[in-house]
Amino acid sequence: MPANHDDVLRRLRAELPDDRIRTDAATLEALRTDRSGVRTPGPPLALVEATTIAEVRAVCRIATATRTPIVTRGAGSGLAGAAAAGPGELVLSTERMARIVEVSPENQYCVVEPGILNGDLNRALAEHGLWWPPDPASKDFSTVGGNIAMNAGGLLCAKYGVTREAVLALKVVLASGELIEVGHRTVKGVTGYDLCALMIGSEGTLGVIVEATLKLRPAVTGPVPTIGAYFDSIADAATASAAITAAGLQPAIQELLDTNMLLAVTEHTGVDLASAGAAYLLVQTDGPDAADEAERILAVLERAGGRATLTTDPDAAASLVDVRRQGFPALEARGAFLVEDCAVPRSRLVEMYARIDEVAARHDVFIATPCHAGDGNLHPTFVFEGTTDAVPEHVWQAAGEIFTAALELGGTLSGEHGIGLLKRRWLGDELGDAQLELQRRIKDVFDPLGLLNPGKVFPD
Amino acid sequence: MPANHDDVLRRLRAELPDDRIRTDAATLEALRTDRSGVRTPGPPLALVEATTIAEVRAVCRIATATRTPIVTRGAGSGLAGAAAAGPGELVLSTERMARIVEVSPENQYCVVEPGILNGDLNRALAEHGLWWPPDPASKDFSTVGGNIAMNAGGLLCAKYGVTREAVLALKVVLASGELIEVGHRTVKGVTGYDLCALMIGSEGTLGVIVEATLKLRPAVTGPVPTIGAYFDSIADAATASAAITAAGLQPAIQELLDTNMLLAVTEHTGVDLASAGAAYLLVQTDGPDAADEAERILAVLERAGGRATLTTDPDAAASLVDVRRQGFPALEARGAFLVEDCAVPRSRLVEMYARIDEVAARHDVFIATPCHAGDGNLHPTFVFEGTTDAVPEHVWQAAGEIFTAALELGGTLSGEHGIGLLKRRWLGDELGDAQLELQRRIKDVFDPLGLLNPGKVFPD
Repeated sequence: MPANHDDVLRRLRAELPDDRIRTDAATLEALRTDRSGVRTPGPPLALVEATTIAEVRAVCRIATATRTPIVTRGAGSGLAGAAAAGPGELVLSTERMARIVEVSPENQYCVVEPGILNGDLNRALAEHGLWWPPDPASKDFSTVGGNIAMNAGGLLCAKYGVTREAVLALKVVLASGELIEVGHRTVKGVTGYDLCALMIGSEGTLGVIVEATLKLRPAVTGPVPTIGAYFDSIADAATASAAITAAGLQPAIQELLDTNMLLAVTEHTGVDLASAGAAYLLVQTDGPDAADEAERILAVLERAGGRATLTTDPDAAASLVDVRRQGFPALEARGAFLVEDCAVPRSRLVEMYARIDEVAARHDVFIATPCHAGDGNLHPTFVFEGTTDAVPEHVWQAAGEIFTAALELGGTLSGEHGIGLLKRRWLGDELGDAQLELQRRIKDVFDPLGLLNPGKVFPD
Repeated sequence: MPANHDDVLRRLRAELPDDRIRTDAATLEALRTDRSGVRTPGPPLALVEATTIAEVRAVCRIATATRTPIVTRGAGSGLAGAAAAGPGELVLSTERMARIVEVSPENQYCVVEPGILNGDLNRALAEHGLWWPPDPASKDFSTVGGNIAMNAGGLLCAKYGVTREAVLALKVVLASGELIEVGHRTVKGVTGYDLCALMIGSEGTLGVIVEATLKLRPAVTGPVPTIGAYFDSIADAATASAAITAAGLQPAIQELLDTNMLLAVTEHTGVDLASAGAAYLLVQTDGPDAADEAERILAVLERAGGRATLTTDPDAAASLVDVRRQGFPALEARGAFLVEDCAVPRSRLVEMYARIDEVAARHDVFIATPCHAGDGNLHPTFVFEGTTDAVPEHVWQAAGEIFTAALELGGTLSGEHGIGLLKRRWLGDELGDAQLELQRRIKDVFDPLGLLNPGKVFPD
């Protein structure tokens, strides 16, 4: 270990209680990756588990004084490698900052520390009849701070918005250790630039989120009608899904599974879904109009050639939902895999699925693609031989061609997982040189020494 | 006119058709102000009415080459002086860029040029069963580009969000003349920093918005029940309003009028509202649950001591709405005035009204305060002798004390009007030194020569 690292540890131990700092090999080894499977060249210098804003500030001041890079980490549930840490880096965990500071039903906001799990928060809010809408699939093991840092999506975004729309204000510690408060506790607020929105989705590169004021909604109550519909082709299913939106109907969720997903689930569960159709669309409605809306959606799907079932019976609904839920376990059972994440305008889904088929054939790779159809967010999932932390180059080539297709269809190369380490090389394709340069310079404004999550988001 | 100005005009005339450039005295004189009433020391250099993105780019290139400041202007309906232009400045109007480029019901977005009026756009969208929610009181004479530049609010924000939540993507011309595209056409998108959100509310200081992709909703149909309720005090009315939100009910609008507003309307219209109560709350519900929700709100208001009327009859509803609508005309009739704009968390409205009363008494100034109660956004309106473009210093002192009170109660010094020229001196009070410095440096990243709307937003 170079002398500088001794100095960093000495300074940390001088300012923080002993139990905040961990340097055992097993702990550091686990920090080389997140749920993306990417793995850095080696373990980081140390893990600091901060418990207060003052401790985060102290860590940042020490990092600045010693020019030590900081990788902020929540639960490590990210899918882009944004929290994966490497040699010489300090991991700053906010997982132990998990308090609910305030819940205000009158103002429909709550104030929380960043390390609380999304699911834990929502269970606590439910007691007040309130709800924080961001609903990533990881909600039971991802932190609110991580959801904000990545601008998490999920199944409900078409109806209830992304994380950005559910955050009012943030306390942020800058690399220098300075504490700023961005955003407003009020619904409206237009004083200066919207640095709160700028922080959301910035993947730990601009500052450390140490407190969040979250915009809440009244909990949605009442029955949730569920529709499962099989179609003869993914094109028919995607067209049917677009027809729902075009009819002005607003389901809570719309999940689309393609043929390869149905094949994988059939193989995995032994239940022959593949014979039922070549594509599956799962729809749920909620709110006061849920029953009526579900009936109208059913009619749209049947007109579009769907063989559809509508139910409000919990067991029957669970089995319709289970088709979707079995998707990722079924793919995991087939081998190593890379879950990708692009989005296109809803009307271009049919073309996008065709482009994915072409790419799969060209590279002879198995791709199964579930899709949050209500917002056009696809997860092309590549299954390959080997291990998940060593994605073969031909798979990356295929992925790159899919990103290009998404951009050509007016879409984006990441709907909800972010850029992290995995997609840096394509970022410029989407942003263009002029905007990429602006973004780099914004990074410099917040973090002039380049200490916050270096090597993430931006291409080298 | 200095030689430099001749040079600017010569270059503009060389690159743009003649009818785009106006220098007549009456036109330039009108550009010294907006609807705030503020007036710059003298008229600007010229008005350029661009009709295409290419023309905007040419104007920016010429401005950069000649170091000429640019004030971008839509309809001039702003209330903070952000579009008021002075000597040596070039006014770049986007009013003639008013086309609807695309409406996509399948994707629930439309693409528009910035100069289209909000009201005109929404009339066109209604034919598709669609709706762009931003609903400032100025909607019939304010442009979509101006709404975005100021992050406009309005009456519907508690339920339907502010402008930021209704914009997917923007094309922006930088001071250099470079064109960038920020945001995504998809509901989700997390590639790099959210420069689209950063542009929204930036008041013409970061770039020129030349095209916008707007997030639409299905038009809300069905009857809109209306409730008018009189209370014995503004505290009772504000408490009742907070109780609506705390009960998990979500009206489309909640407008609160205080005693001075009722007095002014009574004097102006001759209809004795002041005897009916000391405060008035107007509530409307919409959507599939509107009727049921209105009944439950009625019960909340009556429990809170309100004398309330609920109606779905259009004429009866119009007369309940008219109490609110007569507010500003009634104040205009009393003399010169300054409309202010702060916001506090909904639960602090009672305290805020008390603080406003104290300030009015201390400075012996007449203040009437309507409020978008659903989002805690108050418009303390100062009536004084003289003219609206010469606000007396004691009125500014009183306004400053009200801003301080809003900040002390956890609020903001501008809910929806912005900073412009009028509120620069208080911006640092809200943001703090560290954040103010970050914001200045972000401005420098986009506009290193300081040519875009100089002297606006930031204190000297």
